[in-house]
Amino acid sequence: MGEFELIERVFRRRADAAPRRAQVVLGIGDDCALLAAPPGQQLAVSSDMLVEGRHFLAEVEPAALGHKALAVNLSDLAAMGAQPLAFTLALALPPERAGDAAWLDAFAGGLMQLAAEHGCALIGGDTTAGPLNVCITVFGLVPPGQAPRRDGARADEDLWVSGALGDARLALEALRGGLALPPGLLAQARQRLERPTPRIALGLALRGTASSCIDLSDGLAGDLQHVLRASRVGASVDAGTVAGLLQTPAPLTPQQRYAFTLAGGDDYELLFTAPPDRRAAVLAAAHAAATPVTRIGQITAAPGLVLRDAQGRAITGNFAGFDHFSGHATGTA
Amino acid sequence: MGEFELIERVFRRRADAAPRRAQVVLGIGDDCALLAAPPGQQLAVSSDMLVEGRHFLAEVEPAALGHKALAVNLSDLAAMGAQPLAFTLALALPPERAGDAAWLDAFAGGLMQLAAEHGCALIGGDTTAGPLNVCITVFGLVPPGQAPRRDGARADEDLWVSGALGDARLALEALRGGLALPPGLLAQARQRLERPTPRIALGLALRGTASSCIDLSDGLAGDLQHVLRASRVGASVDAGTVAGLLQTPAPLTPQQRYAFTLAGGDDYELLFTAPPDRRAAVLAAAHAAATPVTRIGQITAAPGLVLRDAQGRAITGNFAGFDHFSGHATGTA
Repeated sequence: MGEFELIERVFRRRADAAPRRAQVVLGIGDDCALLAAPPGQQLAVSSDMLVEGRHFLAEVEPAALGHKALAVNLSDLAAMGAQPLAFTLALALPPERAGDAAWLDAFAGGLMQLAAEHGCALIGGDTTAGPLNVCITVFGLVPPGQAPRRDGARADEDLWVSGALGDARLALEALRGGLALPPGLLAQARQRLERPTPRIALGLALRGTASSCIDLSDGLAGDLQHVLRASRVGASVDAGTVAGLLQTPAPLTPQQRYAFTLAGGDDYELLFTAPPDRRAAVLAAAHAAATPVTRIGQITAAPGLVLRDAQGRAITGNFAGFDHFSGHATGTA
Repeated sequence: MGEFELIERVFRRRADAAPRRAQVVLGIGDDCALLAAPPGQQLAVSSDMLVEGRHFLAEVEPAALGHKALAVNLSDLAAMGAQPLAFTLALALPPERAGDAAWLDAFAGGLMQLAAEHGCALIGGDTTAGPLNVCITVFGLVPPGQAPRRDGARADEDLWVSGALGDARLALEALRGGLALPPGLLAQARQRLERPTPRIALGLALRGTASSCIDLSDGLAGDLQHVLRASRVGASVDAGTVAGLLQTPAPLTPQQRYAFTLAGGDDYELLFTAPPDRRAAVLAAAHAAATPVTRIGQITAAPGLVLRDAQGRAITGNFAGFDHFSGHATGTA
């Protein structure tokens, strides 16, 4: 099957069948797609590339891969308070995948189901032979000035995080054989690794409330550093509370628990700041979005990141986060 | 060197130093970039993925690779009559490239020089370890209704092409050892293969004149079929004239000449249609853009593509164009 036929058959049929917002003027099938941002809206753009063995295991189910490839991009829109609009898909496939209709159907199915849930139209892209690689660029809409940026955190603000942390890394370690986990618990954790939920509803609900926001892809400690550097502030984090956000009731050492929740990576939760007098607004946003949030610390005027355990003692160790070139969490204590 | 440091050092410095249009509200450094399409403009979006051994040879110079990766995307904007605005870059690098500062500098240099020539800002992206893969998504601006689409060709219109054809394929065949070429001629043809010129100025000048347009990436005959299918028309092409558009004075058989110019691929010229009473306007646009154009045939009401030689005889053979899964021009006669 040639690349044109492949694109036509598997993706275009699904893309044409899906509803799309009026701002998508022209979709798949020309040299470019055309988008019309309505007056009073800006276009948020993010691009992520997923590589086999680095962002997903070779044995991943294709539907889960399709889901995750879009989810990690939608997560970036969530962190900017943007409403999903459309995406492009560039796909390199080895010959054994390009000729595997069942694999392609499942991949496209997982991808387009998540897209449909968010009204996000597939508007174009590229397909080629090559080592498996999925590159998605996603577009969302946000009114000017309402996207919470990384440089918006201020001293004495609260630090919040959505949902659960560390379960994706727990699953990865178990799948790699570095850790034994009962099948039921592995299945639960694996769901978090392979089918993360982009926090779009929470991102929208936090518009006007969150002063800064970032999505957690590389691990809380590492991603938080991006916010601290951009905002020129520091933070004190209650690592005991963070360690309690691991959802899977797995028998772990305290060190494993800290490492997975602080530096595990692949969480795709939102880490955000808000003034203390906005606590009720944050909780109302979380309620409206049906997404749990937890207050895990404070922003400090003094630079640097201080991690404290449940007894208030400072924890030492380098929780810098997942580095895609070294392939593991760097310096998990 | 970790991925964050890599992105920061090589790309961000260059991106921050480059001028950018006012529509780029927020560039590299957050979860998303932000674009503001001005009133009365739509956003044209295109995405292309380049894979080693498929779109470029392993021994390609990094500056040429950087140039070409953006050029093929800008070529899509040109075909839509769009003014370049910004782009994202997702890059998978094997360890030996990720640690090679000279390679990265040259790649970024070739990329950003072409970007600067077109006022196209690098606004974000992704970097990861993996088999070498360059995925660029490009954004341009075009007023509503002014992008010449593939479905706009009408019977009795002229068929035009810009620039030269076939030289990229000639270089590829010579580099692969399938054909002997004197060094001077190889260098000339190789320039067309590795440093294609996106026809942005011509695309802009043809706004309101071209009724349909496509950029030539897979070969004239194959890409023309996309226009004919979308417009539900046919075409008669003067293949003798097309064969004369090979720029490199190489000693070739007539069959090679037809194959390279009709189905060679990697030309990145514009193929467009316009009514016969717009010939003066087409030539004025070409003059304004300092880009040669050649009239190579007519659109016909009857479907199908008829190729005629210099004597007006129909040429048979399947010039369907380059297929990235088979890796060679399919059925070059």
